[in-house]
Amino acid sequence: MTEQKDQPVNIEIQEDEEIQDLLHGELVILQKKNGYRFSVDPILLTSFVDLKDNDRVVDLGTGTGVIPLVLAKREKERRAAFVGVEIQETMADMAERSVEANALNESIEIQHGDIRKVREMFAADSFDVVVSNPPYVPLGKGQVNPEDEKAQARHEVSVKLNDVVEAARYLIKPKGKAYFVYPAKRMIDLLCLCRENKLEPRRLQFVHANMASGAKLMLLEAMRDAGPDLKVLRPMLVYNMEGGYTEEVANILNEEIFT
Amino acid sequence: MTEQKDQPVNIEIQEDEEIQDLLHGELVILQKKNGYRFSVDPILLTSFVDLKDNDRVVDLGTGTGVIPLVLAKREKERRAAFVGVEIQETMADMAERSVEANALNESIEIQHGDIRKVREMFAADSFDVVVSNPPYVPLGKGQVNPEDEKAQARHEVSVKLNDVVEAARYLIKPKGKAYFVYPAKRMIDLLCLCRENKLEPRRLQFVHANMASGAKLMLLEAMRDAGPDLKVLRPMLVYNMEGGYTEEVANILNEEIFT
Repeated sequence: MTEQKDQPVNIEIQEDEEIQDLLHGELVILQKKNGYRFSVDPILLTSFVDLKDNDRVVDLGTGTGVIPLVLAKREKERRAAFVGVEIQETMADMAERSVEANALNESIEIQHGDIRKVREMFAADSFDVVVSNPPYVPLGKGQVNPEDEKAQARHEVSVKLNDVVEAARYLIKPKGKAYFVYPAKRMIDLLCLCRENKLEPRRLQFVHANMASGAKLMLLEAMRDAGPDLKVLRPMLVYNMEGGYTEEVANILNEEIFT
Repeated sequence: MTEQKDQPVNIEIQEDEEIQDLLHGELVILQKKNGYRFSVDPILLTSFVDLKDNDRVVDLGTGTGVIPLVLAKREKERRAAFVGVEIQETMADMAERSVEANALNESIEIQHGDIRKVREMFAADSFDVVVSNPPYVPLGKGQVNPEDEKAQARHEVSVKLNDVVEAARYLIKPKGKAYFVYPAKRMIDLLCLCRENKLEPRRLQFVHANMASGAKLMLLEAMRDAGPDLKVLRPMLVYNMEGGYTEEVANILNEEIFT
């Protein structure tokens, strides 16, 4: 990872934080030095989202805000409006400071809140697009310290998958789209929850390390109140024969970030 | 397709039928000259089935019997016992004659029957393995002549997908396995029906024409009463860069069949 601590950025940094740059330095984002750090998963999801002009977009469980930050900067000509909802106050605060540091205050609003109480925060059907990288480790699997930020982001400590899907169903307008990145091994949960909530899976892409590997992740587009007509796209491969990133993934990740 | 009409086979052939050979000539199978003919789909499924010694296997909607014929011949050392259930009498009769022609009467039993009445035909939990290539075109889509054999095999004229999954659930013993081949675009129906019927999807492989194409088919292994732990395997590619079959698929299809 490249860090740009010396670069003058209008951002307040805590001692346990550092700045990482994305989009070839066009975007900076606060990360914890230890603890939860965003992974490639949400970045891959940003490449899968089909934004339209002036879309209203909400990210459920935005963490340090990586999804709205990347989308707002990379697709700025879309003039979309983003809201990132995060239950953990320290992470919501970091996301907020990253928004300021990138002068994206007019495009992105960070809300510290619980998506289980989304009815108190937003009107029904008030977004064109919902995105989420939900927690995916069921409680009871692995050791979890509920005070731990990393555990909250990855395990279903506070928010469960059905909370995320139900919130999406409430927020999204008819024929609006929901986007999720989720481990392939747990995809049946997500697919069936989507269908039960009338978010019909319409476009699905699996992410494989290489052609000889099983899928690790799935990227899903679901459409509210749509009929069944699923497209399973060509597989996305992360690594080439030499062990480096494929051109496709290098382009999405902007190479220098995760090498 | 290569045909071996001149080969002496102990089989009674109707005027509208012909003999096709599979497994490099080790297996012969009756096909209609016109009307329903089996496709590559059930052959690909045979390669996905994980047979154990002495398994009792039932094929729901066996058509002309291609799945039990291929499995019984190719994996004869498993000494598995197969039952093929087929609602259309003419096809069940063809399957029966193919079983005789291949001297597989001790391994394969063909039953003319309706899988919606499977409770009258078999005891519950009486099979280790269920396989099926279910009809997949919903009624009301496309033009269908309900008298047409091809339509009955491919459209949900008489048997619907949930009939197949419910029959599988009834027939399969706890921890037994169900195998399905199904169009990728309708896979949500199958995955959610399986889960509702406590046939948990455990292994899934998508079949793509090539790396740049979306998936056309999915091969699914579900296990009765199992917990969620899905493996999405590496993609199966049908064609190579030169437009011929990939080595993998050529091996499954035995090349000469479908070229």
